[in-house]
Amino acid sequence: MTHTLTLTCAGRPGIVAAYSGALFAHGQTIDEFDQHEDPGTGRLFMRVAFHAVGGDAAMTAGSLSTALRELGVQFGARWSLNDGRTKRRVVLMVSKFDHCLADLLYRWRLGELPMTPVAIVSNHPCSPTIAGLLGDIPYHHLPVTRDTRAAQEDRLRALLSMLACDLVVLARYMQVLSDQLAHELTGRCINIHHSFLPSFKGARPYHQAQARGVKLIGATAHYVTGDLDEGPIIEQDVERISHADSPDDLIRKGRDVERRVLSRAVRYHLTDRVLLDGVRTVVFPD
Amino acid sequence: MTHTLTLTCAGRPGIVAAYSGALFAHGQTIDEFDQHEDPGTGRLFMRVAFHAVGGDAAMTAGSLSTALRELGVQFGARWSLNDGRTKRRVVLMVSKFDHCLADLLYRWRLGELPMTPVAIVSNHPCSPTIAGLLGDIPYHHLPVTRDTRAAQEDRLRALLSMLACDLVVLARYMQVLSDQLAHELTGRCINIHHSFLPSFKGARPYHQAQARGVKLIGATAHYVTGDLDEGPIIEQDVERISHADSPDDLIRKGRDVERRVLSRAVRYHLTDRVLLDGVRTVVFPD
Amino acid sequence: MTHTLTLTCAGRPGIVAAYSGALFAHGQTIDEFDQHEDPGTGRLFMRVAFHAVGGDAAMTAGSLSTALRELGVQFGARWSLNDGRTKRRVVLMVSKFDHCLADLLYRWRLGELPMTPVAIVSNHPCSPTIAGLLGDIPYHHLPVTRDTRAAQEDRLRALLSMLACDLVVLARYMQVLSDQLAHELTGRCINIHHSFLPSFKGARPYHQAQARGVKLIGATAHYVTGDLDEGPIIEQDVERISHADSPDDLIRKGRDVERRVLSRAVRYHLTDRVLLDGVRTVVFPD
Amino acid sequence: MTHTLTLTCAGRPGIVAAYSGALFAHGQTIDEFDQHEDPGTGRLFMRVAFHAVGGDAAMTAGSLSTALRELGVQFGARWSLNDGRTKRRVVLMVSKFDHCLADLLYRWRLGELPMTPVAIVSNHPCSPTIAGLLGDIPYHHLPVTRDTRAAQEDRLRALLSMLACDLVVLARYMQVLSDQLAHELTGRCINIHHSFLPSFKGARPYHQAQARGVKLIGATAHYVTGDLDEGPIIEQDVERISHADSPDDLIRKGRDVERRVLSRAVRYHLTDRVLLDGVRTVVFPD
Repeated sequence: MTHTLTLTCAGRPGIVAAYSGALFAHGQTIDEFDQHEDPGTGRLFMRVAFHAVGGDAAMTAGSLSTALRELGVQFGARWSLNDGRTKRRVVLMVSKFDHCLADLLYRWRLGELPMTPVAIVSNHPCSPTIAGLLGDIPYHHLPVTRDTRAAQEDRLRALLSMLACDLVVLARYMQVLSDQLAHELTGRCINIHHSFLPSFKGARPYHQAQARGVKLIGATAHYVTGDLDEGPIIEQDVERISHADSPDDLIRKGRDVERRVLSRAVRYHLTDRVLLDGVRTVVFPD
Repeated sequence: MTHTLTLTCAGRPGIVAAYSGALFAHGQTIDEFDQHEDPGTGRLFMRVAFHAVGGDAAMTAGSLSTALRELGVQFGARWSLNDGRTKRRVVLMVSKFDHCLADLLYRWRLGELPMTPVAIVSNHPCSPTIAGLLGDIPYHHLPVTRDTRAAQEDRLRALLSMLACDLVVLARYMQVLSDQLAHELTGRCINIHHSFLPSFKGARPYHQAQARGVKLIGATAHYVTGDLDEGPIIEQDVERISHADSPDDLIRKGRDVERRVLSRAVRYHLTDRVLLDGVRTVVFPD
Repeated sequence: MTHTLTLTCAGRPGIVAAYSGALFAHGQTIDEFDQHEDPGTGRLFMRVAFHAVGGDAAMTAGSLSTALRELGVQFGARWSLNDGRTKRRVVLMVSKFDHCLADLLYRWRLGELPMTPVAIVSNHPCSPTIAGLLGDIPYHHLPVTRDTRAAQEDRLRALLSMLACDLVVLARYMQVLSDQLAHELTGRCINIHHSFLPSFKGARPYHQAQARGVKLIGATAHYVTGDLDEGPIIEQDVERISHADSPDDLIRKGRDVERRVLSRAVRYHLTDRVLLDGVRTVVFPD
Repeated sequence: MTHTLTLTCAGRPGIVAAYSGALFAHGQTIDEFDQHEDPGTGRLFMRVAFHAVGGDAAMTAGSLSTALRELGVQFGARWSLNDGRTKRRVVLMVSKFDHCLADLLYRWRLGELPMTPVAIVSNHPCSPTIAGLLGDIPYHHLPVTRDTRAAQEDRLRALLSMLACDLVVLARYMQVLSDQLAHELTGRCINIHHSFLPSFKGARPYHQAQARGVKLIGATAHYVTGDLDEGPIIEQDVERISHADSPDDLIRKGRDVERRVLSRAVRYHLTDRVLLDGVRTVVFPD
C-alpha cells in the first residue's frame, strides 16, 4: 500500500533531509519524490509517495503520524497524508452534454480513477444515455431557474455535506456557481472550460474561436473560484482545426480534448499531484 | 514549371467546371486542387496548381491569361496567377532577438522558402551573429526613438518601395507599425507574436503566461493590421510547459515554437496557400 | 443531402474538367473537392462531395448516374457514389478489452459516426459493461479454440453475409483472421494495432515498447490483409511516455490513443475519405 | 553555482535520507530532486541539483566530496558530481546535411547548450555554409573510403583523445562507427537517426516510411553502441505526414523533428539528466 504525503511551507535548507530521514526512521521506503520551490515567493511544494519496508504490517502509523506532525510544526507546513486506502468521495455534476461524464465513469470502471462516485447531480432530468451509465450511483435532479438559483444551491450544499463529498467535478455543468459556494469549495471543485484559457472566457467559446479564426482549439481544467474562468489551471490541451471546420465540427473535435483534459486533471487531483500555489498550480505529473 | 492560380469570388455552381475546363482547353493538367466556401458569407476560395501537358513549351500563356481574365469578369473574382518563376521579394525585419531571422535565412538557403530576400531591416546595428548570416543581403539600420517614429517609417516606406518589396516579415521586430503603414501593407506583412493569440496580447507575453499559470505556451503568425495583435491568423502552435519553468525557460522553449510557426506561415504565403477571408484566413496546407 | 463520389483511375489531363462539368450539367454544386496523383504509379485518386442546386428534389439521379457510368468507362475508373442516405452496416468485433468498442458506440450515439451497427461479435461472453452499451444491437458470442478456428470463421462468415455487413471493425478483437477471410474482407475490415507500426508487430506491443525504452507509444488503424499487421495504414498517433511508466501505465495511456486512432479511421472510412493505393492509403481528412 | 549529483546503485531504504542529510550537513540546499527505481532490476537512479546556502563561498568542497565518496562506498553507487563550472568538451561530427550542426551551434551561441565545442569533424570538406557557422571552432576534414575506414578511425580516435573530448555528437554523420570505437565511446556518443526507431533502421528511412505509407515520421536520438540503431534511446518525436508528401517533403519535414530531437537529447546529456539503465535510459526532463 502506497502512502502519499503532500506539503507546502516556506522553503529553507534541510526539509528534504528532515522528511526523508523521518520516513526512513519509521520503516518507510520512498517510491517517488517531487519538490518545487517557487522562485518568486520562496514557497516549497513537496510530494512523497512511500511504502513500508516489509509490507503494510510494518507501518507504524501512529508514531510516523506523530513525527510528521512535529515536522509540520517545525517547518510551518500545511500537509496531508493520503493512506491509499480511503478513496475520495466525488460528486459529478452535468447539464445536457454528457461526454465528459460518460468518459469519467468509464475510466472509473476501468480503474483509472481512484474515487468513489457518490452522486451525479444535474439541472436536467436523467437522460436514457446517462441512465445506462449510472449503475448504483444515485442521480439527483436539481432543476434551476434564474429565480431559484439560491434555493437550488442550498439544496446542492446540503447534498454535498450529507454525502461527505471530498471533490466536486463540473463535467460540463453549465450553471455558474455563486461566489459563496465557489469559495466554500476552494481547492476541491474542478471545472472543464471548453477553450484554451485565458482565451475565449464565458459563453460559446467554440463560436468565439471560429469567429476569431484561430488554428487550434483547446480545453482547460481548473479549480473553481469566485472569478469565473479565472481559477488555478490544472491541465490544458489543444487540437488542430482549419477554416473548413464549422462550429459543429469544433464542438465534435472539442469533445475529445475536453474529455482528455478533464480526466487527466481529475486523476492528478485524486492521486495528490496538484498543489495550489496562489492563482497557479504545481502539478507533479505521472 | 508549376503555375498557381488563386481566386476568391461569390460562390455559385459551375465555378470548378469553368476553371478546370479552361485549364484543360489550354493544354494544362491539374496537380493540386483546393476549394473552400465560407458558409457564413458564401464566398468561395480556390487554389489550383497546374502545369502544361508536355512541358513548359506547350504553355500558351497568352491565350490562357485571356481565358482567365474572361472567367474573372464572369464570376466577379479577385484572382492572381503565380508563374512559379518569379520569386517574391522579401524584406525581413528584426530587433534584438535574431532566432527567427536566422531560421528563415537558413531555411531559405536549404531551398525551403521560394523567395528573394532583398534586405534585412533593423532598428539596431548589425550584430556579429547576424553579420555571419547575411551573405549578400544588404542590412539597413533604421534606428528609432519615440520622437522619430514617423520619420523612421518614412525611410522604411521609401526603402520598401525602392526595393519593390512584395512581402515584409516581422521576425521579432519589436516596434509597432503605424496604422497607416499597417494599412498600406494589408495582406503582405506577416508578424510573429510570441503567444497563443488571442491570449496574452501586447508586451512580455511569456511573463503574462507564467503569471497566469497556463500549461502550454504558443506562438501566432498573423497578417499585420492597424489593430495590434488582431490581424488574420495564419498559423499557430504550442509547447507544453510546467510550474518548474521560469520566464527564461519559457523564452527558450518559445523560440522553438516561434521559429516553427513563422517559417510555416511564410512558406504558406510564398506558395500561395493563404487567402484572406475578412478577419480570418483560409490556409490550404501542404 | 450531400452525395460523395470517389474514384481512382490512371491520371491524365481533363479528368477534373470532365467530372466537374458533368456535375454542373446535372444541376449539382460542389462542396468539397480532393484529388491526388501518386507520382510513382500515376494513379489518380479523387473525392467530390456535392449536392443538388435548389435541394434534393432537383437531384436527377438517373441521368447523373448514367453520365458517371459513361465517364467511368471513358477513364477506366473504379468509382462509387454514396448517396448520403444509406448508412453502412457495421459489425464490431471485440475480445476482452472493450474500451475501443465503448468509445465507438458512444460516438455513434452522439452522431459522430454515420453507420448502422448491426451486430457485436466476440469470442467471449457478454460482460455486464458491454451489456450496458448494447441497446438494441444484438450480441453474438462465437467462442473459439485452437481447434475450432475454421468452424468459428465459418459461423462468422455466415453471420456477416446474413447481416449484409459492409464493414467489420476489429475493436481489439484478439484473434487473427485466416488469410482467406482477410482476403474476402479486403478494404472493408479495419483493425486497431496497439503500436506505432511497423514497430512492435505481433503480441504484447506495450511490453515490447517498454523493453526497448522508446519515448513515445502509438497506435495504428489499418485495413486487414493476409499479412498480419502489414495492411494499408489509415491513421496513426502517439503518446509521450517515460522511464517511470510501467507496462500497466503504457496500457492505460495506450487506451486513449487507441480509441482516438480507431474512431478517426472508422469515421474516415464511413465518410468515404480513404482510398486504397496498393499497400498504402490516400486519406482526405476532414 | 548549481552542482549536480547523479548516481545509480541497488535500491534500498534510506538512500534519499542519507544523501539529503549529507548535503544539508555540508551547507547545501536542494534545488531539484529526481529519483527512479527500475521495478524489474531494483536499480535506483538519482539526480540532485543543489547549491551552497549563502553562496558559493560556503561550498566546503573538500569535506562534501569526502562524504559523497563514503556514501558511494556504503551504497555501492556509481556516481558523479558536476560542479557547474566545467563545461563538457564536445566534438560535433557531420557529413553533407548540416541542419543539425547549424542548429546545435546556433543554440550554443544563444546559451541553450552548456558545452565547449572543441572541433567539428567531417568526412567532407568544409562547405561555405558550415564555414560561416564555425567562428573559432577548428574544422577537421577526415575523408574516408571503404578501404581507409580503419585508418580514418585511428585519426579520429587520436583527435578525440588529444582534445580531451567528453562527448561526441553525430549530427547526421553518415558513416557507421566500428564496434570497437562505439564501445570505447559508450555513454558519451549521441547519434540522431532520422526515423522513429525501432521502425526503419538502416539506410534511407524516409524512403522506407514513404513506401510503407505511415502517417507520422519521426526522429530518434540515442547513444551509440556496437549494435547499429539499437543503442539506448534518449529522445524521440514525430511529425504528421500524408499521402501527398513526396520523399523530398518528408526530408524537409524531417529536418525539423531531427533538429528538435537531437538538440533536446544533447541538452539533457549536458545537464546530467540522462542515466543509462542497460539498453534503456532514465531521463529526468527539464
